[in-house]
Amino acid sequence: MTNSKTVLVSEEALSRFIASALQHEGLPAGDAKIVGELMAQADAQGSDGHGVIRLPQYIRRIRAGGINVRPNIHIATERAAMAVIDGDNGMGHLVVSRAVEVAVEKARVAGVAWVGTRASNHAGPASLYARMPMAHDMIGLYFAVGNANHLPPWGGMDMLLSTNPIAAGIPADKEPPVVLDMATTVAAYGKVKAKAKQGEQMPEGWMIDRQGKPLTDPLRAEEGFLLPIGGYKGYGLALMVGLLAGTLQGAAMGKEVVDFNHDDVTPTNTGQAILVIDLAAFGDAKMFKHSVDVLVRDIKSSARLPGVEQIWLPGEQSHQRRADAAAHGIPISAVLFAELGELAKGLAIEKLSQVTNQ
Amino acid sequence: MTNSKTVLVSEEALSRFIASALQHEGLPAGDAKIVGELMAQADAQGSDGHGVIRLPQYIRRIRAGGINVRPNIHIATERAAMAVIDGDNGMGHLVVSRAVEVAVEKARVAGVAWVGTRASNHAGPASLYARMPMAHDMIGLYFAVGNANHLPPWGGMDMLLSTNPIAAGIPADKEPPVVLDMATTVAAYGKVKAKAKQGEQMPEGWMIDRQGKPLTDPLRAEEGFLLPIGGYKGYGLALMVGLLAGTLQGAAMGKEVVDFNHDDVTPTNTGQAILVIDLAAFGDAKMFKHSVDVLVRDIKSSARLPGVEQIWLPGEQSHQRRADAAAHGIPISAVLFAELGELAKGLAIEKLSQVTNQ
Repeated sequence: MTNSKTVLVSEEALSRFIASALQHEGLPAGDAKIVGELMAQADAQGSDGHGVIRLPQYIRRIRAGGINVRPNIHIATERAAMAVIDGDNGMGHLVVSRAVEVAVEKARVAGVAWVGTRASNHAGPASLYARMPMAHDMIGLYFAVGNANHLPPWGGMDMLLSTNPIAAGIPADKEPPVVLDMATTVAAYGKVKAKAKQGEQMPEGWMIDRQGKPLTDPLRAEEGFLLPIGGYKGYGLALMVGLLAGTLQGAAMGKEVVDFNHDDVTPTNTGQAILVIDLAAFGDAKMFKHSVDVLVRDIKSSARLPGVEQIWLPGEQSHQRRADAAAHGIPISAVLFAELGELAKGLAIEKLSQVTNQ
Repeated sequence: MTNSKTVLVSEEALSRFIASALQHEGLPAGDAKIVGELMAQADAQGSDGHGVIRLPQYIRRIRAGGINVRPNIHIATERAAMAVIDGDNGMGHLVVSRAVEVAVEKARVAGVAWVGTRASNHAGPASLYARMPMAHDMIGLYFAVGNANHLPPWGGMDMLLSTNPIAAGIPADKEPPVVLDMATTVAAYGKVKAKAKQGEQMPEGWMIDRQGKPLTDPLRAEEGFLLPIGGYKGYGLALMVGLLAGTLQGAAMGKEVVDFNHDDVTPTNTGQAILVIDLAAFGDAKMFKHSVDVLVRDIKSSARLPGVEQIWLPGEQSHQRRADAAAHGIPISAVLFAELGELAKGLAIEKLSQVTNQ
């Protein structure tokens, strides 16, 4: 995964660097630390479109007044098995982490809990939050409204929907957990941007133009739309996720969604929702996790189609990447590393250091 | 929708006919009535692969001892926001209806509730159950394990997964509700069977053979596998749904799933799960439903791609079909109508009557 154009950094160093930058921008030290850890974890697990690469954008937004660095994140309404967290336009990582905490507490008593957010912001990869309840022998199911609309309704051209992701974290016993994290579009928009940066064409099926024809040039992405998975089905899923993660909590959905790539100032009123399920309420958590192990092994040992080298479980590759990152460091592109060096200079904070003995 | 090869029957007559047949087979009158109503509703909304067409199979299964006609459907375990219903191998329609009732009661207090089933059976179209909470100004989110495995893990050939559907019922105010009901495969297996019956080929993308090549002859369906929506993403969704609807409740999943098309005797131990969300817990239900109206109208009035006549919302076509069925009757194929006539003769029950003034 590393080549001449990447450098290696440790997850801990990366986390500290991000925290230091955000603290410089006005976040309290504790909050900056939480965001740093979650963003570094995103890079460590290979969700590099949602990790430190976002730091310059977050800083730009903070400086423009588009994010509240001292938010009063609080419960706006609650019952035994639900709550809505008002994020007061704070960093999404903080708002959603709080939502998960509240959901875990409630699920421990009620068995199941749904906690949504409003006045939140972009929070990085969905899987970060779906994973959190697993430490408590709980399942996490996560929905979010994306921060830019690139998806029209099926057959339409008005971009009323985003890539609204679904994520699930389902613990196993001896095997790695099953962790799903998927946009409801064929490709997340970050992948389109990555193709543009790499000077590559997109495969057919990612986007169409306004004639409904395949669009494969990522530099023309603004002229077209993303395609949902499974055609009208993915459109239905994106809509469902948006209603559950956005509308239900009084967060933005449809025309209200702010494109945070083109607007640093307007509060996004982002909505997310986490459903937490306590395994102990359903029976013996250990037995459940053992059943997941058995299923995982049946899947891994399935006969394979010609040319297929191995069967992957959702989340298995991220799991391996994070183990690799812990052993050898996180690969970061040399270009990004240089940009972060400039950023450090501008902020007068300590530079991000490379792993020394590669 | 009707042609020379269909006859029209009223939803009420169809419901009574099904109830009468099931009562003859030993179901208590009240239970037979519930199943009749739900099966007829499936036909009325156009889910005809899950309606009266299943009656002969259900009867065959009851006679073989594969379904318990006098089940003790009961709560096996519960907390404030969850329960597991043990269906005692009763008709799935009864077990899941009970699960929805319990979930609605709990959601009214806790705000949100998850109720799962085990020892249940095939229950017809997912949307029937996702719709139910809407009458209480609640959202329904439904997951089920399919009753035959036709889907291998991505890249594999062992059919460890089913078409595991996801359904959602989200109420609007003046507009029809948003009702999603989708298999996590490109085509539900019932559609493959329908193509075979009609003597038509399947489009590429529904199934592949054991070489990974497109399989388009529905008569060769047993030689191949269904394809998940969005490739590995749909595989991940089918797996997630199976773990949530099956494994979590102690119901069948993976190798444990009984193919109820080829086995009338073995209890299927089917699992389903409904999540019910009470709108009132989140704020003003009326305001939420109005927001859904606004979004629905924005979507309906979206600019359209060339050649697209109108934009549909999930569930909108079913909604229209049910209105048509109420006005004119439900179209049923003449072949099926004749089969039901034979069935009535065999059971010595009153024949299903056609709508008289077409």
